[in-house]
Amino acid sequence: MKSAVYTKAGQVGLASIERPQIIEADDVIIRVVRACVCGSDLWRYRNPETKAGHKNSGHEAIGIVEEAGEAITTVKPGDFVIVPFTHGCGECDACLAGFDGSCDNHIGNNLGGDFQAEYIRFHYANWALVKIPGQPSDYTEGMLKSLLTLADVMPTGYHAARVANVQKGDKVVVIGDGAVGQCAVIAAKMRGASQIILMSRHEDCQKMAMESGATAVVAERGQEGITKVREILGGGADAALECVGTEAAIEQALGVLHNGGRMGFVGVPHYNNRALGSTFMQNISVAGGAASATTYDKQFLLKAVLDGDINPGRVFTSSYKLEDIDQAYKDMDERKTIKSMIVIE
Amino acid sequence: MKSAVYTKAGQVGLASIERPQIIEADDVIIRVVRACVCGSDLWRYRNPETKAGHKNSGHEAIGIVEEAGEAITTVKPGDFVIVPFTHGCGECDACLAGFDGSCDNHIGNNLGGDFQAEYIRFHYANWALVKIPGQPSDYTEGMLKSLLTLADVMPTGYHAARVANVQKGDKVVVIGDGAVGQCAVIAAKMRGASQIILMSRHEDCQKMAMESGATAVVAERGQEGITKVREILGGGADAALECVGTEAAIEQALGVLHNGGRMGFVGVPHYNNRALGSTFMQNISVAGGAASATTYDKQFLLKAVLDGDINPGRVFTSSYKLEDIDQAYKDMDERKTIKSMIVIE
Repeated sequence: MKSAVYTKAGQVGLASIERPQIIEADDVIIRVVRACVCGSDLWRYRNPETKAGHKNSGHEAIGIVEEAGEAITTVKPGDFVIVPFTHGCGECDACLAGFDGSCDNHIGNNLGGDFQAEYIRFHYANWALVKIPGQPSDYTEGMLKSLLTLADVMPTGYHAARVANVQKGDKVVVIGDGAVGQCAVIAAKMRGASQIILMSRHEDCQKMAMESGATAVVAERGQEGITKVREILGGGADAALECVGTEAAIEQALGVLHNGGRMGFVGVPHYNNRALGSTFMQNISVAGGAASATTYDKQFLLKAVLDGDINPGRVFTSSYKLEDIDQAYKDMDERKTIKSMIVIE
Repeated sequence: MKSAVYTKAGQVGLASIERPQIIEADDVIIRVVRACVCGSDLWRYRNPETKAGHKNSGHEAIGIVEEAGEAITTVKPGDFVIVPFTHGCGECDACLAGFDGSCDNHIGNNLGGDFQAEYIRFHYANWALVKIPGQPSDYTEGMLKSLLTLADVMPTGYHAARVANVQKGDKVVVIGDGAVGQCAVIAAKMRGASQIILMSRHEDCQKMAMESGATAVVAERGQEGITKVREILGGGADAALECVGTEAAIEQALGVLHNGGRMGFVGVPHYNNRALGSTFMQNISVAGGAASATTYDKQFLLKAVLDGDINPGRVFTSSYKLEDIDQAYKDMDERKTIKSMIVIE
C-alpha cells in the first residue's frame, strides 16, 4: 500500500509498504477514506533531526473497517468509522470521567498513528472507534470534511471549552486561529458563550471565526492584545482557550482573564514548564488561591454553622488570653494544639 | 490598646499601642472578641529576619463593630461580625464570579491584618464583613469557635473543594491535617463525596477528621502513600485537596489522582514554581490535555455535525491526493491553507 514517509526536514514522500495486518485481538484494520495533516505533524516535518524513511505522524482519519480482530464486538467489516487520535478503553477511571484522551490503560499510545496511508492498523479498537451511519458516498464533501474533524481538531477545540468550564453567558477568548482555535470558537458558541474573541492576525482565519460565532477579533499580541481584549469586554474574560502550545500563548491566555478566571489549554506544550507539562499529560485540572470567605459565609457557611450542620470550631484545640500570645504561637509551632484561639475580653 | 507584636524569631510579645482610627470613609473599627493564630502566621514567627516591633500578621477574627466610616451602609456600631481575611469589593468580575479572595480591586490587601489585638481597622469594609445574628453572649464557646473559623480556615478548606469541583459520589483525598485540611474534610462531605481519605501521621488529627466525615486515613507519604491511597480507592482519586503549600504536598496531590482528576490547592505556595504561584495569586484554574474524542463524538459532536448544527469541516481549506502529500504539508507550513485534507480513494 501507499503511505506517506518523512524524507528529510521539510519534505514528505510516498513509499510502497506492506499493508498492516491484525496482530492483537483488539486490532482493527481500516481502509482510509480521508486523512489530514495536523499542526502537530508540522513539528516533526520541520525537525532537522527527522530521518529519511520515518513513517508519518498522521493521526486523524475516517474510513471503512476492512478487518476486525476476534475480540472486536462493536464494529464489523464495511462499517464507516471515525478513527480518533486517542485509544480510550472506556472502562478506567479516566474514561468513565470522560477523559479518554488520557486513558489510564492506554496512555502513551495516542499519537504517531501513520494515518496518512491507504490502510491503518488501529490498536485497542473496541471502544475507541465511532461508527458513522451509512457510507461515505451518502455524504457531501463538506460533510465528509466535518466528519473528519471529529477525529481530532473538533473534539480538541471542544475539550478546551469543556475543561475551562465555559458556560452560558461567559466571555471567552480563544488564543490560536488554526484549525483547533476555529473549533474552539464553535465549541464556545455551542456552550452558550455570550462573547467570543479570537486573537488572530490572519484575515482568512478572522473571517472563518466570525462566521462560526466569534463576536470580535483582536490582532494585537502581548500586553497590547490584553489591553484591547479588556477594552472590548469591559473587563477580564471568564475563560481563555489556549490552542497553540507556546509559552507566549499561555501568557496571553492568563493575561486576558479576570481573577478567578479559567484557562483550558490544548496546544501540545512546546515549552519547558514542568508543572503545566505534567498536568497536561495527565489531563489534570489545577485550581486554587485565596478563599472567598465573604461569599461562602453569606451564601451557606454561616447558616451551616448556626444550624449545627458542621462543627469546624473543633480545630481550636486550645484557647489563650491575649497576654499569653507567645504561648499560643509556641504551642501551635510545636504541634501541641492544631489551632490556637485568642480570647479577647 | 494591647496588640501582639513580633519580638524576634520564635517569640511574640504584647505592646501597648494607639487604638486604630477611621481613616478612609469605608473603614470600620472592630472590637475583637475572638482572634486566632494561622499556620501562615508561623512562617513569619519562625523567620530569622523578623524584626522586633513588627506588628502581628493575624488576619482572622470575630468581633463587634465599634465605629463605621461614613460610606458604610451595611453594618452599624454594636453589630456582631465575622472579619474575614479578605476584602472583596463585591462588584468586580472576580467577586461576581465568587472569587472575592482575589478581588480585582483590592488584591494585595488580604493579609497582614494585625488582628491579634483588642481593636482592628478593617479596610474596604462595606461588602466584605459578614453579620452574625445576635451578640457573642448568645452563643456557646463551641459555637463561637465555629464562627471564628468562618474568617479563614473553613472558607479556605471549602475553596479547595469548590475549585476542585468536588461532586456527589467523588473519591477525595485531603493533603494536610491541620486546621485547613480538617475543614477541607468537612467541605468534601458537605459536597457529597463518597470517600474521603486524609493523609495524616498525627493521631489527634486523624481522629478529628474521622469524626468530621473522613472514611480512611493514610499515614504513609511519597510513593508509599500514593500506593496506599490507590489500594483503598481501587484506583485513583477524582479530586485532591492540597492544604499545605509545599512542593511535596503538590506532588502528593497530583500523584493520587487518576488521569482527568482535579487538584484544588489552597496551601499558600512556599515553593518556587512560577506557573502555580502566578495562577494562585489570580485564583485562575488551569486544565488541559488530550481531548476525549470518542466520548464527545459519541455523546453529541457526531449528532451536531450530521444535523448540520456545526460545520467544523470548513477548516479544510485545501484537499490533496495522497500522491501530493508533500504539497499538503508545505502549503500548511506556509499558511496557504488552514488545514490540509488528504483524499484517499
